[in-house]
Amino acid sequence: MTLALGVLVSGSGSNLEAILEAIARRELDAEVRLVVSNKRGAFALERAARRDVPTAFVDHEAFPTREAFDADVVSRLRGRGVEAVVLAGFMRIVTPVLLEAFPDRVVNIHPALLPAFPGVHGPRQALEYGVKVAGCTVHMVDAGVDTGPIVAQAAVPVLAGDTEASLAARILREEHRILPRALAWLARGELVVERGAGRPRVRVPAS
Amino acid sequence: MTLALGVLVSGSGSNLEAILEAIARRELDAEVRLVVSNKRGAFALERAARRDVPTAFVDHEAFPTREAFDADVVSRLRGRGVEAVVLAGFMRIVTPVLLEAFPDRVVNIHPALLPAFPGVHGPRQALEYGVKVAGCTVHMVDAGVDTGPIVAQAAVPVLAGDTEASLAARILREEHRILPRALAWLARGELVVERGAGRPRVRVPAS
Repeated sequence: MTLALGVLVSGSGSNLEAILEAIARRELDAEVRLVVSNKRGAFALERAARRDVPTAFVDHEAFPTREAFDADVVSRLRGRGVEAVVLAGFMRIVTPVLLEAFPDRVVNIHPALLPAFPGVHGPRQALEYGVKVAGCTVHMVDAGVDTGPIVAQAAVPVLAGDTEASLAARILREEHRILPRALAWLARGELVVERGAGRPRVRVPAS
Repeated sequence: MTLALGVLVSGSGSNLEAILEAIARRELDAEVRLVVSNKRGAFALERAARRDVPTAFVDHEAFPTREAFDADVVSRLRGRGVEAVVLAGFMRIVTPVLLEAFPDRVVNIHPALLPAFPGVHGPRQALEYGVKVAGCTVHMVDAGVDTGPIVAQAAVPVLAGDTEASLAARILREEHRILPRALAWLARGELVVERGAGRPRVRVPAS
C-alpha cells in the first residue's frame, strides 16, 4: 500500500527532494500528497511544484496560537488523505493537535546524533562542543523538542578545518540517505514503536 | 621522545593491553612506567605483570578523602617519572590533585559518544534511550564527569537484538583502536588543547 505523505518544510527542501527521488527510484512506496511551508517563497515549494506535487503556504503569523496553525495544517493534510507527516527542515514546534491527528506517524529529521545537540543549531553546537563524530537522526516526534523515539541515525566525521557550513553539508548528505530509508520502513509497516518500561523505542528491520 | 605513561585501572585492563600492544608494534612511542589499580586482584594488574610492567594496588578505602588517595597515586606516578596519565576503565572520580599534577596530560576513555551518556553505564544508557549509533570517546579529563575536551571518537551501530554486553563489546573494539592512536598523537606533541572563546577544544592531526 502506497503511503500517503505530507511534508512540512520551511526552507530549501533538499530532504523533500531526497524523498521524491527515492519514490521515483521505487525505493520508497509513497506518494507526497501535499507540501506545506510556513515560509512564503521557500525553495521547497518550487521543488514540489516542479514535480507537480501540490503545495500550500500557511503563514503561521496569521494564526493566534500554535494549535490553531496546526489545526489548519491538519485539515489540509487530511483533505489530501495524508497518513503520515514528515518534518523536513520545518522550523516550528508542533503541538499535540498535529501529533494526535497522526499518532506515531510524525517523523522528523535532525542534524545531530540525538540525544546530543537538540534544537535549532545541531552542527554549530557540535563544532562548539568539539566532538569528533557528528551525524543526524530520524525520530518519531513527541511533545518534546527532538526527544522522540529514534528510528535511524548516521554518523559522519568532524574534520580539521570544518566550518558550520561544511559540517552541515556532510551531515545533510546522510540525512538524504537515512530519511527515505526510514520512510520506506514506515511504508512497509516495518517500523514499530514499542512501549514498555522506560522510553518508547522504535524497532526497525535488521540492516 | 618516548612518553612515560601511568595507567589507572579498576578492571580487566583490555585498554591497557591495547596500549601495550601498540607500543610493542611501535605505533605508540611510549612506555608504561606504572599501572595503578584501586581494586585488589584487578585482572589488569596481571596483564601488566605478565609484560613486566610495574604495578601498584592502592586501596581507595584506606584514604580519608579522594584528594588523599589522589595524592598517594600522584606520588607513585612521579616516583616513576610519569608524564601523562591514562584512565583506562578507572572507576573513580579524580580530583584537582591529580589534574594539577599532570595539566592537560590526563586522558580518559569513555564508552559513549560524549556529550551523550556520560557516567558509569554508557552502553546501557544508549540501549535504554534507543539510539541507533553508539560509540566511544577519548577525552582530556577536567573537573567534571566526562566533560573534558574531546580528542577522538568512533561510532558503532546498535544492532537489533543487542544486549548491554554485545554493544559494550562492539564499542570496546573501537576503544582499543582510538585510545592508542590518541596517545600516539600526545606522544608526538600533535595533540594541542586550544583555549579561546567557549569550551577548550583539542586539535589533532588531520586523519
